[in-house]
Amino acid sequence: MDNTKKVFRAIDADGMLTYSPDLRAYLTGFPSSFGFVYTDAQESIFFTDPRYAEAAKKALKNQFIAVEIAKNEDTVLDYIRTKKVRRLAVPCSRVTLPQEEKLRKFHFKIVDSDPAFRAAMAVKNMEELACIRRASEIAEEAFGSLLGELKEGMTENEVAALLEYKMRRAGAQDRSFETIAAFGKNTSVPHHVPCGDVLCKGMPVLLDFGCRWGGYCSDITRTFLFGKSEDADFMAAYEAVYNAHRIAADAITSGMTGREADALARDSLASRGLDKFFTHSLGHGIGINIHEFPTLGPNSHDRLNDGMVFSIEPGVYFEGKFGIRIEDSVTLSGGRVISFMHSDKKLTVL
Amino acid sequence: MDNTKKVFRAIDADGMLTYSPDLRAYLTGFPSSFGFVYTDAQESIFFTDPRYAEAAKKALKNQFIAVEIAKNEDTVLDYIRTKKVRRLAVPCSRVTLPQEEKLRKFHFKIVDSDPAFRAAMAVKNMEELACIRRASEIAEEAFGSLLGELKEGMTENEVAALLEYKMRRAGAQDRSFETIAAFGKNTSVPHHVPCGDVLCKGMPVLLDFGCRWGGYCSDITRTFLFGKSEDADFMAAYEAVYNAHRIAADAITSGMTGREADALARDSLASRGLDKFFTHSLGHGIGINIHEFPTLGPNSHDRLNDGMVFSIEPGVYFEGKFGIRIEDSVTLSGGRVISFMHSDKKLTVL
Repeated sequence: MDNTKKVFRAIDADGMLTYSPDLRAYLTGFPSSFGFVYTDAQESIFFTDPRYAEAAKKALKNQFIAVEIAKNEDTVLDYIRTKKVRRLAVPCSRVTLPQEEKLRKFHFKIVDSDPAFRAAMAVKNMEELACIRRASEIAEEAFGSLLGELKEGMTENEVAALLEYKMRRAGAQDRSFETIAAFGKNTSVPHHVPCGDVLCKGMPVLLDFGCRWGGYCSDITRTFLFGKSEDADFMAAYEAVYNAHRIAADAITSGMTGREADALARDSLASRGLDKFFTHSLGHGIGINIHEFPTLGPNSHDRLNDGMVFSIEPGVYFEGKFGIRIEDSVTLSGGRVISFMHSDKKLTVL
Repeated sequence: MDNTKKVFRAIDADGMLTYSPDLRAYLTGFPSSFGFVYTDAQESIFFTDPRYAEAAKKALKNQFIAVEIAKNEDTVLDYIRTKKVRRLAVPCSRVTLPQEEKLRKFHFKIVDSDPAFRAAMAVKNMEELACIRRASEIAEEAFGSLLGELKEGMTENEVAALLEYKMRRAGAQDRSFETIAAFGKNTSVPHHVPCGDVLCKGMPVLLDFGCRWGGYCSDITRTFLFGKSEDADFMAAYEAVYNAHRIAADAITSGMTGREADALARDSLASRGLDKFFTHSLGHGIGINIHEFPTLGPNSHDRLNDGMVFSIEPGVYFEGKFGIRIEDSVTLSGGRVISFMHSDKKLTVL
């Protein structure tokens, strides 16, 4: 079944109009920076501009989506009007006020398609899983190659750029988000932005990165030591995060809520008095977007199910000292967690 | 004058609430993926989450903006309510339906801050110009280095990745957009996405790229030949685009409309019968965003003024054959165009 039907059938509306690059890519399987997808019980049409029309026609030739040229939203809304649509589904979280004003002129009754997209996109089919698997392999291949080239004096910015370059050389379409490279005490900032700070012997290094393949993302974090360290606190904290990761990956099952999954890692860290340093959620869904449904966190009632892809990423952060995060992208299959990652999660000392 | 005051004073409202990373960066000078800026006649407050609060306090220590921690929009709206704001300015094009629903609950009268932001951000101060100048220098330095390393058999994807890596190594924070690298007939697609196609002797190469420094973007396109070509059509078209660029850069003056500027290049191409192959606009504003106000295009009434930064990028595209685009980032100073670029725009044959 194609994705337009999958989403449309879950919504009680006469027609569905879809904006925004990620949802458009989900429906068409085709990346575009401009366009609209219109879907109803009879048809799906990808309205795009001349820049993409030729490529879209080629890419969509075996699918149920027709391609039409549209200069702007008005062309599309005029078309929808001819179809006598009253209840029109749009992804409300992506609709802006000027867009809403246009919709109002046509007197549509607006229905929110967000929940249907969220649910449909969360459960991946075999093709989507294969893309994420490949994106994960490429990320790990680039990481393995990078480890052999790290040298004293390299800057965070340089290491982040080199890792992104290696992912592209290994076949990635692109990075899936801006790579985080943190050295020394910068590792204690969960979302550190790489800067000019240089790598020195004995420093902890945290790399949070991923790439895109076939339109889908991978996401991985590794923390390691660049040369030996005598820091017993670091060693103990690493062991604790490693165990929290292992316990969560072993015990998360389909049917759990995001809150229950999060608690597995959080309780494990709490048993060593480290839960107060675990300042973020355990994980997030991964797909066309690097952050999607479901959330694995203390307040999440999202239900985890087979076919979902998400991150497991416990971490602890000691301000001004160091931080540790260990992250895999995983899926649920047969009720259990299967990781896309193969690189060692035990402490690596380069 | 700080930017919060500059924008707020241009709006008839009691308070101003600003969302979205680009506008937030413009007001605070500080990059953040989450936060809200509230401004009124008495104060400006940057509400952000604990992840950014420390860094923001350091970065904003000499400015007129206070930093407060906010978990979500509700905290901020509650604060605004205490200030008895009736007319609240928000950037309507960035406000989504769920956000509007929240605003409605508080019975604010919504005023659109978009036009004020557009006007304020278009005219750059000395610091902003210095950032764009540096971003331009870095992009050209990386490009110069790349030219020496191009080899037969390299893929578009590899060349794009290598150029981005070189910009980062040369000091860029990041690329300013996804680099376009096109070889041979792929150059005829204005927004070609780099793929696995390989570089061969005699091919035209089109590179459209730029980087970010101090938060501000550069944007440049060069088209050149990888080895000699006997294609007289290519040579003639290159000469035509080169002249169109030169004529526009020489004749654009402050006070012109975007339409008049565009016509300079378009008329020049028309004199050789090539205007129908110039399928996009002459240029776009550049700043924190890679595409901003003003537009230089056939339908643009935007007024060009001193201190604005925009691209001049005439191009011609022959489907299935080749395309040529020559682009500089420029500013208007003393009424005339000053380019940020120094690399040769005459045809280079490697």
